[in-house]
Amino acid sequence: MTDHELPSAVVVREVGPRDGFQNEPERIATADKIRLIEQLARTGLRRIEVASFVRPDVLPQLDDGVEVLERLEVPADVHLSVLVPNVRGLERALEHADRFHEVCVFASASETHNRRNVNRSVAESIAAIEEMVPRVRAAGLRCQAVIATAFGCPYEGVVPAERVLELTRRLEAAGADEVGYGDTTGMANPLQVRALFRRLRAATGEGLELTAHFHNTRGQGLANVLAALEAGISTFESSFGELGGCPVPKGATGNIATEDLVSLLHEMGIETGIDLAAVLEASREVQRVLGRPLGSHLLLAGPIEWPGGRPAAG
Amino acid sequence: MTDHELPSAVVVREVGPRDGFQNEPERIATADKIRLIEQLARTGLRRIEVASFVRPDVLPQLDDGVEVLERLEVPADVHLSVLVPNVRGLERALEHADRFHEVCVFASASETHNRRNVNRSVAESIAAIEEMVPRVRAAGLRCQAVIATAFGCPYEGVVPAERVLELTRRLEAAGADEVGYGDTTGMANPLQVRALFRRLRAATGEGLELTAHFHNTRGQGLANVLAALEAGISTFESSFGELGGCPVPKGATGNIATEDLVSLLHEMGIETGIDLAAVLEASREVQRVLGRPLGSHLLLAGPIEWPGGRPAAG
Repeated sequence: MTDHELPSAVVVREVGPRDGFQNEPERIATADKIRLIEQLARTGLRRIEVASFVRPDVLPQLDDGVEVLERLEVPADVHLSVLVPNVRGLERALEHADRFHEVCVFASASETHNRRNVNRSVAESIAAIEEMVPRVRAAGLRCQAVIATAFGCPYEGVVPAERVLELTRRLEAAGADEVGYGDTTGMANPLQVRALFRRLRAATGEGLELTAHFHNTRGQGLANVLAALEAGISTFESSFGELGGCPVPKGATGNIATEDLVSLLHEMGIETGIDLAAVLEASREVQRVLGRPLGSHLLLAGPIEWPGGRPAAG
Repeated sequence: MTDHELPSAVVVREVGPRDGFQNEPERIATADKIRLIEQLARTGLRRIEVASFVRPDVLPQLDDGVEVLERLEVPADVHLSVLVPNVRGLERALEHADRFHEVCVFASASETHNRRNVNRSVAESIAAIEEMVPRVRAAGLRCQAVIATAFGCPYEGVVPAERVLELTRRLEAAGADEVGYGDTTGMANPLQVRALFRRLRAATGEGLELTAHFHNTRGQGLANVLAALEAGISTFESSFGELGGCPVPKGATGNIATEDLVSLLHEMGIETGIDLAAVLEASREVQRVLGRPLGSHLLLAGPIEWPGGRPAAG
């Protein structure tokens, strides 16, 4: 692939209703969650992460996951995901398997982050994933496996690309449909992103979807998106309103905003199937629900307007 | 140039003391301006735009430009620039030519923006620049000519690349040492940036410095920096603390922040000669002077820390 050829279409996976709502200090009312997810599901977004089967005492913000799933009504072509931290969470989730399409499991690439996040070693987390993936697929569901701190760890520093490759091979061998790579505390840079994704694409089968999850902690989120596009990546995770981010370490914030991502893609002529104005309306609505201004650039500046029409890409 | 080869070093031209201070609702005290500029001049920044010779009644925020220039003490290797809007401004500036190194002149690529900004046609602005450049150079000074709305106009929409090329050729023929390209209201996208700068580099002489000035209005500023780097551009303008931006149209804000730019460059292994921590300290200081939080990402999140050291680029 030359550096002129970016993917012509991109899939955006919305994580705000899980990653965003989880990081709010106050629990959002179930009815508000359902209304906001249903609003997102009418924007053209086709993949939405909507619930987590983490223990309710650990994550009270998402303790109504089952109710959200049971009451939610979305178009048939919108695929819903749930996050599970371990086998026990998976078993609880699978009791409601008719209400979603995909299970998301995760481990960190770095030992210290994994231990602080889930109090287990990486080996233990990967072993659990290797047990869970076949059960997810046996239930007729898709499985996304996420590697957190894939671009750097706030405790350990450098995460070698070889480490990320090795974990990816294990997740692929376990039967994951998709591997996501999280820049969990915003340490990735574009050269690293491009190099890592090129290696990952070369090392994995065509059937494995590779997905980038960037944070905008230092303002570099969309530059990393560009670099990943240049490496042929065409699935990106983001959060409406710029909600969410990783609570470990404290103070680290900042998923890239869905509206900022979609704006960048559309301006470059890359199709998403998403109605940008409708996403912005959902972000304004969650802003009203939360009662505070959110961080996305488009909420502040509005979309780019091109009198006479947007120019051809490039 | 393949897409792997980015410039190994970049020049950052700091515009905050002019572009930023100009856009503050309250006039900053002269002593504060001088102190802040002197602080910036000790960070490793080698080019700083410090004053404007616009009419004081039009721009009272910068009406103390002469006093700033006369009192300022910066290291000998720090080059200071002043902005002039017209021949009369240039004549006033040249009375103090021993206090700075460079004059910055400007026109918009789009007719409507130019008229709203300076109440003249583009042809009139370019004719004035053609008169001014030789006088700047005859005074032993360097001349930067800026093309505003080079990537799109909020009133007219598309600005054809041919138009920007044509204006560039005229500025080069007039003797400008450098042409700057302003994404004045944040409409540029990376594909457009890369394509335009590749054409500009091919169409101009080696001796002409080409400089990118991006806004972060839709969060895309650093993605555009990456695209410009890929096109071989190695001079970028930015503003400490993310101060400033264009007041036409109202509400449009957002120069890229110097600290966010420098962080991105350093993470990619690109040298700037700038001490990031020192720039951040200057941004904290201007935050104290203004009495409000500023918008740069690094002010909020702090610099990336790599326990054990930053990894090699790529």
